[in-house]
Amino acid sequence: MKTVAVISGGLDSAVLLYHLLAAGDEVLAFSVNYGQRHVRELEQAAALARRRGLRHEIAELPGLARLFGANSLTAPDIAVPDGHYTDVSMKQTIVPNRNMILLAAAAGWAIAEGAGAVAYAAHAGDHTIYPDCREPFAAALDAALAQADWHPVRLLRPFITWSKSEIVRRGAELGVPFADTWSCYKGGQRHCGTCGTCTERREAFRLAQIPDPTSYFAG
Amino acid sequence: MKTVAVISGGLDSAVLLYHLLAAGDEVLAFSVNYGQRHVRELEQAAALARRRGLRHEIAELPGLARLFGANSLTAPDIAVPDGHYTDVSMKQTIVPNRNMILLAAAAGWAIAEGAGAVAYAAHAGDHTIYPDCREPFAAALDAALAQADWHPVRLLRPFITWSKSEIVRRGAELGVPFADTWSCYKGGQRHCGTCGTCTERREAFRLAQIPDPTSYFAG
Repeated sequence: MKTVAVISGGLDSAVLLYHLLAAGDEVLAFSVNYGQRHVRELEQAAALARRRGLRHEIAELPGLARLFGANSLTAPDIAVPDGHYTDVSMKQTIVPNRNMILLAAAAGWAIAEGAGAVAYAAHAGDHTIYPDCREPFAAALDAALAQADWHPVRLLRPFITWSKSEIVRRGAELGVPFADTWSCYKGGQRHCGTCGTCTERREAFRLAQIPDPTSYFAG
Repeated sequence: MKTVAVISGGLDSAVLLYHLLAAGDEVLAFSVNYGQRHVRELEQAAALARRRGLRHEIAELPGLARLFGANSLTAPDIAVPDGHYTDVSMKQTIVPNRNMILLAAAAGWAIAEGAGAVAYAAHAGDHTIYPDCREPFAAALDAALAQADWHPVRLLRPFITWSKSEIVRRGAELGVPFADTWSCYKGGQRHCGTCGTCTERREAFRLAQIPDPTSYFAG
């Protein structure tokens, strides 16, 4: 199947890309620059697509950042909180309705390219914090995509019941270059090691019992 | 209710804005510049919001035009077809998944602003040509919006069973300044009078038996 994979340059979506290719899908890689602080992600996304010889489109949607008001992913003057993803403080990293916007744009491209599906790397570890990574949202959006055009697009979410450590394990099987993926929300030269997504990344490698090749600044 | 109204500067969404205000809603006006040729629309949208003293946000999403490939709303080298909306030739004016993208971005802004709903001016005249103006799509997207965030956003579509002439009649009741709305896809100084949306606009005034104040280029 021809599938548009939404990739961020992070670990989860890198494994998604390899997972789809391993299943024999023809993959088009898609990212959005919505004005996020960690543009480092997008460079990693482009490098990943190049490595696998895939077309990669980055939709430039800078106008979204302005809409999103004060939140730490798009506003440079708000500090990224340290700590675990499940902490209440992590809620401020959320871009309102981000996944629906990403997936709607990806589906537009899928329709234009005649692809039958869009895939994203939502996983069970995201549940408590992000409603738009949960199955009820994914199922409802899949139903909306079936009605949006004469050319229906399915929404694939193969990791939605997986923990992040299961994703790391699958990535290790598939030879995903983990060191070339970017998770840190702070967007420095190295992973900070302390923000919510760094904390989750380190924990996933530890639980999966897979060596973590990431160079962290702290810890 | 605090409601984000998606307005294009066209006739239908101008009536929507007045209709929501007449019902006592607190309205935030929202438009998207997705690289469309008829930016004249956006100027009319801004003027309409100013006239009613409303906040108006135009999300600049120029990256969408590139994704959409060859279609006459975004590609300057493709001629806009003349004729009636129901003609097969009008299909080429469609931006893939446009309404889901617009509504997803509008909902992001609604969440950021604490609004409880997003409204759009889909109507029954759009049915044969645009799946994303039909009730099955609207109902499915409404269900997805209920799952997308802790702050649920409803999707209002008050005109979805109305014909365009019923919208014109409602607009006349409400004193909508029809002459200051823009429909033509060709984006000239005056309405061309012959493209699909001009044809539909003229017909709606005729059927509604309301004087059409539009200045058309062709007779």
